[in-house]
Amino acid sequence: MIKIAIDAMGGDYGPEPIIEGVVQALEEKTFLPILVGDKEEILSLLPQYYIDKVEIVESSDVIEMSDQATNALKRKDSSIYKAVELVRNKEADAVLSAGHSGATMTLATLRIGRLPHISKPALATLMPSLGNNKTLVLDVGAVTDCTPQNLYEFGAMGEAYVEKILNVKNPRVGLLSNGSEESKGNALTKEAFKLLKDLKGFVGNVEGKDIFNGNVDVVVCDGFTGNILLKTSEGVVTTVFALMKQYIRKSLPAKIGALMMRKKVFANMKRQVDKDEYGGAPLLGVNGCAIVSHGASNAKAIKNAVFQAILYTQSDVNSQIEELLGGQK
Amino acid sequence: MIKIAIDAMGGDYGPEPIIEGVVQALEEKTFLPILVGDKEEILSLLPQYYIDKVEIVESSDVIEMSDQATNALKRKDSSIYKAVELVRNKEADAVLSAGHSGATMTLATLRIGRLPHISKPALATLMPSLGNNKTLVLDVGAVTDCTPQNLYEFGAMGEAYVEKILNVKNPRVGLLSNGSEESKGNALTKEAFKLLKDLKGFVGNVEGKDIFNGNVDVVVCDGFTGNILLKTSEGVVTTVFALMKQYIRKSLPAKIGALMMRKKVFANMKRQVDKDEYGGAPLLGVNGCAIVSHGASNAKAIKNAVFQAILYTQSDVNSQIEELLGGQK
Repeated sequence: MIKIAIDAMGGDYGPEPIIEGVVQALEEKTFLPILVGDKEEILSLLPQYYIDKVEIVESSDVIEMSDQATNALKRKDSSIYKAVELVRNKEADAVLSAGHSGATMTLATLRIGRLPHISKPALATLMPSLGNNKTLVLDVGAVTDCTPQNLYEFGAMGEAYVEKILNVKNPRVGLLSNGSEESKGNALTKEAFKLLKDLKGFVGNVEGKDIFNGNVDVVVCDGFTGNILLKTSEGVVTTVFALMKQYIRKSLPAKIGALMMRKKVFANMKRQVDKDEYGGAPLLGVNGCAIVSHGASNAKAIKNAVFQAILYTQSDVNSQIEELLGGQK
Repeated sequence: MIKIAIDAMGGDYGPEPIIEGVVQALEEKTFLPILVGDKEEILSLLPQYYIDKVEIVESSDVIEMSDQATNALKRKDSSIYKAVELVRNKEADAVLSAGHSGATMTLATLRIGRLPHISKPALATLMPSLGNNKTLVLDVGAVTDCTPQNLYEFGAMGEAYVEKILNVKNPRVGLLSNGSEESKGNALTKEAFKLLKDLKGFVGNVEGKDIFNGNVDVVVCDGFTGNILLKTSEGVVTTVFALMKQYIRKSLPAKIGALMMRKKVFANMKRQVDKDEYGGAPLLGVNGCAIVSHGASNAKAIKNAVFQAILYTQSDVNSQIEELLGGQK
């Protein structure tokens, strides 16, 4: 049975949505959750029926969002440290945390270790795109200053992930740039372009809009740019709907119109851009599976993050990554 | 009278929207347009009444969008080259082009020259933000690989522009980063942060979402990131509305609802995010005024770009930039 180590204490809202999400996941799939955290608190939140469906590993420390990620290695009694150690010691197949993402990434990278040929793991996130496709964007925050080699590896990992987890045949991999012509790019991407040409699915430079129009399956960028891109996109969506609400409030016909659109338009759109549908971003390149969930994750997000961890563990994405990089470089 | 040199041949749709935009501008404001291009074609498009309200400078070459910007300096008979020369020779106060933006930026920088203390000019664009504010983002495409000093100068130029052109008192200048804490950033922005601290209005690191929420008036970034940010934002807006249309089409109540929202909601929103309302992006840091318009500019965009050139020329934004940078560095 697949075993998932879950940091029960991480996240903005404490253990409640985490435990609830795990319970929801258990209702749908078979796996063994290993909940790491304050045993008493976990038990108080866990419905009686599920107590023998989980394992609990006691930990007395929690790395807070305001803490420095660099101290994570020293805090050996923290819930995230102990959860990661379970994967390191092969007592769990995957680790999942909605806590301090920097700490999770540092610990997963250093304690679980990297796959062969991977210099730096990357955080990969799915973005909604037209026509019910998704686009995988990486890196979105693990590696702030990248080398061309990093970007090349991100491309290979993205290709493997999309092929093995999303079942996309012949995935198209684009390099995010300031124009689609080969001549475009900054010093970093121009060098990365040359390396990425070795990749079967590489389609060249792409622009920001290509994330959303279904032109590519994978978009490669450095973690600084990816993080800005992610937050800018969220900001635009928030602003568009805030603006819409402002105008709707000022007009009665518009209010009625909005009500008529609520179910078939707005609810569907919300579902399509809903981050909770994925629940977390895989840290690709670690020798195992680590899923980084948003601090504000609700139970649904945690449930979907658990599903992602299960799917990842069942797939052979890591061996595909090894093969892609081992064969070509 | 303010004289504006206008590249009549640049732009995706040829001279027609350019001449029409200039005529619309002449209906509202007093200035002398110097139209550079094919005299016969310009005269054929210009209504009789306006023929003695403009000057025409003949040119026989046009730099096409597909041409290399690097050749721009050699094509001395091109409309953009000749328009830029008019500013260089003080025969015009400003130059405006919807043609090849790389060529326009190269020529304006090299032929008109830079302001004292400016190492690289930056392309600045206004982005809509909540509460009827605008946020100036720079650079969005002039300098792909930046130094910390470049970013510092962008901050000073943005501060001066927003203060003098948009009349914002004590503008707030943010540095675009992957988090708002001072510890965030890549190698470039961490160094730039130290320099930007000297700037009166510097508020520290900001995230992508802060462009749209009214938290700052100026957002500083390198031209690679800025360009990606711009195109990503446009992509998100396009996708949101395309998605909405998709769902509306599938439901009759939603169709009726959308009709009821059209005038008071969608039309207002369209106006608020309409790029044609600004018409062009100023290239800040040149010793004069250069406005870069989008290739797909319509007459309205050109009219507003002309107004921007007039406002820029009337303001003392360039001396403000000199003062800010001359005093502090």
